[in-house]
Formats: sequence, C-alpha cells, structure tokens
Amino acid sequence: MSQVLPKALLDTIDNLAKLPGVGSRTAERYAYHLLKKDSHISEKIAESLLNLHKNVKSCPVTFALISDFEEFSPLYTDESRDKKTVAVVEEPLDIVALEKTKQYHGTYHVLGGVISPIDGIGPDQLHFKELLERIKNDGVEEIIIATNASVEGESTALYLQRYLQDNGQENLTITRLARGIPAGVDLEYADQITLSHALAGRRKI
Amino acid sequence: MSQVLPKALLDTIDNLAKLPGVGSRTAERYAYHLLKKDSHISEKIAESLLNLHKNVKSCPVTFALISDFEEFSPLYTDESRDKKTVAVVEEPLDIVALEKTKQYHGTYHVLGGVISPIDGIGPDQLHFKELLERIKNDGVEEIIIATNASVEGESTALYLQRYLQDNGQENLTITRLARGIPAGVDLEYADQITLSHALAGRRKI
Repeated sequence: MSQVLPKALLDTIDNLAKLPGVGSRTAERYAYHLLKKDSHISEKIAESLLNLHKNVKSCPVTFALISDFEEFSPLYTDESRDKKTVAVVEEPLDIVALEKTKQYHGTYHVLGGVISPIDGIGPDQLHFKELLERIKNDGVEEIIIATNASVEGESTALYLQRYLQDNGQENLTITRLARGIPAGVDLEYADQITLSHALAGRRKI
Repeated sequence: MSQVLPKALLDTIDNLAKLPGVGSRTAERYAYHLLKKDSHISEKIAESLLNLHKNVKSCPVTFALISDFEEFSPLYTDESRDKKTVAVVEEPLDIVALEKTKQYHGTYHVLGGVISPIDGIGPDQLHFKELLERIKNDGVEEIIIATNASVEGESTALYLQRYLQDNGQENLTITRLARGIPAGVDLEYADQITLSHALAGRRKI
C-alpha cells in the first residue's frame, strides 16, 4: 500500500503519542494542528523541550525542581518562609497546588513518589532520610504530611509518621491535611469514605 | 513571590499549552512526565517537530500532504488507483480515515477546509478550481463528496455540486457518502436527523 501520510508527519504523530494519555488520534490532531500553524510554534515547543532536561534539576535539600543556575529552591532560601514548618509532598507539582492557596508560608520536602511495592518502589528510593537530616539541621517543629488521598499516599503517610517516631522525633508535631467534603460538592454526591472523614474531622463552630 | 517552578519547565508548559485542547493543567502533566522520563524522548519529539514543516508539503494536484522529496501524492501516482473516481474531502487527515476502510481505490482531492463566512473562508480559498481542472485533465467520471456531516460540510457539499454543474460538468456522476445509523449504535440513541437520513436512504434488501 502507498504511504498515506508523509514520514515527517508520521514521525511527529508517533513521538507525540508518547505523551501521557495521548493516543494516536490525539497525536494526529496535535501534529496536524501544528502543521497548519506557523512553523514558529513547532520550533518554540521543540526548543523548550531541548532545554527542559538541561536547565532543570532538583534542589539538594527540598527536592523541588529548580533551574540549573540555582543552588537551592527559592522557596527554601526565601527568608520570609518558615523553615520550622515543612510540608511533605509526593511530587514537585504538588508544590504548585499548595502555593496557589497563598495560605502556606512554610517550606516543602518532595518525597519523589510513594511507596508502591507493585512498582518496586520502597522507602529507600524516596527522600525520607534527607527529611530526617533536615529536621535535625533546621530544627523543624512541624511536619505537614500532604501526600495524595490514594491508597499509596495514605500508606506512605503512615510509614513516614512511624519512621519519624522511630527515629527519635517524638517531640515533632506531625499533622495531615484535613480530609472532608471538597468545595462546591453536594452531600448526596460525596462518597462514603469522604463523608466518614468529614464526620470524624468535624469541628466546633 | 518566589518562582515556584524553574523557567525551563514553565516555558515547556506554556509552549505545550499551544496544542489544541490542551490547557495549563494538561500541559503541566505533559511537561513533568517528559522531565521524569529519559531526555531522549523529549529530544525525539523536538527533532520531529523541527522537521515537520521542512519535510512536509502539499501535492499540487490532490493537495494531500506529501514528503518534501515527492512530486505528487503516492495515492495519485499509484497506477493501481482509479483516477476517474475522486473523493473530495475537507482535510488531509480525512484521507487516512477513508484509507483505513480498504474499500476505496479511487483518488482524493483535498478542499483545504469548508466554506465558512464567519471565519472569512469563501470558495476562493478552497481548491474548487483545481478540482475542475483535474476533472477535465484526467477525464474524471465520478466525484464522491465526502465532506463532514456538519452544517459547514453540508453547505460546502451543496456549493461544490452547483459549482460543478454550473461549469459544464452535467455528465459527471456526483455522489455523497451515505448518511445513516453508525455501526454499533442503538436506534433509541440515534438523533432525529440521523434517523431521518437513515429512513430517506433506506435500501431494498
């Protein structure tokens, strides 16, 4: 059979289909859209992708993503942030979500994932040890565990709590994000587990 | 406020958000996924995007997409394809859909869009004239109008039919793709217009 699409377009489709959740139909749509638009847009995307790995690294203390020329995360070195409070998150992008609230003025610690035996990820692959060191060095007083509300997130939170207690951090305040009804959701649509959490965590007004 | 994400990552997110239907959250997910994976994958995508515009052009007869080194669409030059039958489609990717049926052995003509006054696209911006020329040059006997079943697709089909008749093509067979119930769809879920088309186009068995 004759080739229906030119190779350069097929290559672009194949490569874009490597993006998460992008199948061949979506990749086709992306590639054709770019082809119809000015080549400038494709070139901008290409350029930023070529710089991505080169110019981004991890902060050696918080494991947040930082620029190549930075030594530490600006959220850590910023004098106005409270180094005694550390929010522990799974992934660097979780920091973006918490920063958007504008309610948090402590610092962050990225675990780099969750404990997941099925994926072969144990505590040693995550940044627990570095957190313990940091607690000692910075005199951290409160750890806010802000892992996801998934099964893995919950068990990682539990592991972290025990790990800190087993390593002489009995005086450390360990808190977790409240579980409850999300904003704008009707009670009747809230699932059983969410409602149980909301009941258990009810507050006096 | 301190910058939460490094600039190279923000640039990638901004640029990926230019893909159709991709908002900043999806672009964030794409960019972070690429950052976690080997840089090889980002480089492959970048490379194919840089080649995309350089190596793809339009066939001067059918307006299908072809490689830079090709003179005409291989679907047109292929001796086994019937040049007397031409399926007229809106966009180059429509050819892919029709080719997948493996039922069509004629050639194609890409209009390059649909007549859409609201977008300022009139008949002159589409490849009607070139189709007429081709009908004369190749002695085309049948035109299959395969525009989309949208309002614009329908009116473009109507325009094309009149255009051909007004230009001395009274002997040309003009057909359109059948409208009816799509495969796997229950009658009760078919919309009114689809059902009307299905009734009007009913066939003796």
